[in-house]
Amino acid sequence: MATEYLGIDIGGTNVKMGIVDATNGNIKNFYSHETSSWRASGHFVERLGDAIVLQLKENPDVKKVGIGVPGLISRDRNTLIEITAIPETNGIHIIPVLKERFPDHEFFLENDANAAALGEYYFGEEKLPEDYIFVTLGTGVGGAAIIDKQVFKGGGGNAMEPGHMPSENGKVLERIIGKNELLDMANEMRAAFEGETKLPADGTISTTGLVAAASEGDELALQIFDRVGGLLGDGLVSMIRILDITTVLIGGGLSASFDYILPAIQRQLKYWLTPYYVKTLDIRRATLANDAGLLGAASLCF
Amino acid sequence: MATEYLGIDIGGTNVKMGIVDATNGNIKNFYSHETSSWRASGHFVERLGDAIVLQLKENPDVKKVGIGVPGLISRDRNTLIEITAIPETNGIHIIPVLKERFPDHEFFLENDANAAALGEYYFGEEKLPEDYIFVTLGTGVGGAAIIDKQVFKGGGGNAMEPGHMPSENGKVLERIIGKNELLDMANEMRAAFEGETKLPADGTISTTGLVAAASEGDELALQIFDRVGGLLGDGLVSMIRILDITTVLIGGGLSASFDYILPAIQRQLKYWLTPYYVKTLDIRRATLANDAGLLGAASLCF
Repeated sequence: MATEYLGIDIGGTNVKMGIVDATNGNIKNFYSHETSSWRASGHFVERLGDAIVLQLKENPDVKKVGIGVPGLISRDRNTLIEITAIPETNGIHIIPVLKERFPDHEFFLENDANAAALGEYYFGEEKLPEDYIFVTLGTGVGGAAIIDKQVFKGGGGNAMEPGHMPSENGKVLERIIGKNELLDMANEMRAAFEGETKLPADGTISTTGLVAAASEGDELALQIFDRVGGLLGDGLVSMIRILDITTVLIGGGLSASFDYILPAIQRQLKYWLTPYYVKTLDIRRATLANDAGLLGAASLCF
Repeated sequence: MATEYLGIDIGGTNVKMGIVDATNGNIKNFYSHETSSWRASGHFVERLGDAIVLQLKENPDVKKVGIGVPGLISRDRNTLIEITAIPETNGIHIIPVLKERFPDHEFFLENDANAAALGEYYFGEEKLPEDYIFVTLGTGVGGAAIIDKQVFKGGGGNAMEPGHMPSENGKVLERIIGKNELLDMANEMRAAFEGETKLPADGTISTTGLVAAASEGDELALQIFDRVGGLLGDGLVSMIRILDITTVLIGGGLSASFDYILPAIQRQLKYWLTPYYVKTLDIRRATLANDAGLLGAASLCF
């Protein structure tokens, strides 16, 4: 029988879990629950434990559980430090608490972006090197680094917050190319644009519409993504110079724009970096998409 | 008898070596040789070996040798990759070559900034935590990160090139606050300055003169260092966000300006960082000064 792990992706909106086949990443017993209802009970971790009971009862061969959480955790991976979306769990030693209830099981805790990054290694469509940078583009700009097939923790345990690196105009990167800021920028550029474009002029540009327009060669949409790619590229230069890692995976909802931001990313990387880096440069789109969180959590069990 | 290591600091101008007492960092048998004369012989590594022979003959109890080099090395720390100042050594498997000549001795190779950073841990005046960022200010802006008392190698082995992070006006950090650029900036600010200042107006400002003027409260000198500290602070924010390390050591020749750049560094760090980082923030001046290279090389033997 194939090895199976329980993966749990704790998000601000939903907690998703499922039994993951370690050999191929197939998911069964998928279960999703609203985060807010467990929060309202005042016993979030207990409710989480109840859901784990059900999963393990139906899958008695599963002995390892991986959990991804949206925030800062302790370096020893036992304790929740700063989970902005579920702040009442801050300070809870979640792993010892779960171990007490499930003494025969092993639990692994990780930040969700770190877990998603590791998931690409074990469950992604393409073979990856043992070192890579992972950047997620969405409302925020998250990240992770995998070094020697392991999550890079840095000093305090919570390395890789690329969205909070200083970028242009006194703003951090994610406050310029995060989803909302990207749409503001797009609407502003639309207002000032005098050429032909399919993008609406009434301030209602959507990310889907932007990607669709870019795919049809719309000049303004391509200009907007060129700007996003350029700013992301500059940020990547700093990461590459600090980490000496030249494989970069780009995931998250806005990675749908990958093909249109890539030329500007490449341009900036080639402008700033020396041959030592450029010769092994490899910028790819992440492959796991919607299941990245759950598969990432399960990949912690390897 | 105290444990002793042979430390070798290979620089573009001189190769310095000496026997270092592991317990207190005292140096004996100090020897310095011009790099250019060994280069001219066409047998740099052989000449280095000859000098090692003499050192080890006089100090038969020394069994470990640490070597710092100014450039890129292989991740396994056996091979010189890109030593700009001594390019004919690029590609030489220096550690196996030395091991063949000295089979009873252990050799440790490291980039010089990495070695100097580690030297602060073992030989510095103040007790350091096990994780810290090290930045050197000089003609270039170099750096290193120590994580768990070890040099952070990153993915390819050559992590931490903070001087090559993009900064303002399409330039990397060291092309704005490196020694020459800093003096250009100072002379330009002097030309535009209308207040009272001790700094010469004829384009001959020196770094020593700048530090002296700042120490006497000179308004322009303080403004110049405020600008340097601000740009360095912004760069440090990126490093701290990527590495999650909040102790920063500043060394190198220009760290003589430490007291005058510190306020601007602190200001930028507090502007950009959240309490998670700020609560443990600790910016210090490195303590080893002139012997940093040699002691750093010796510290590789621990």
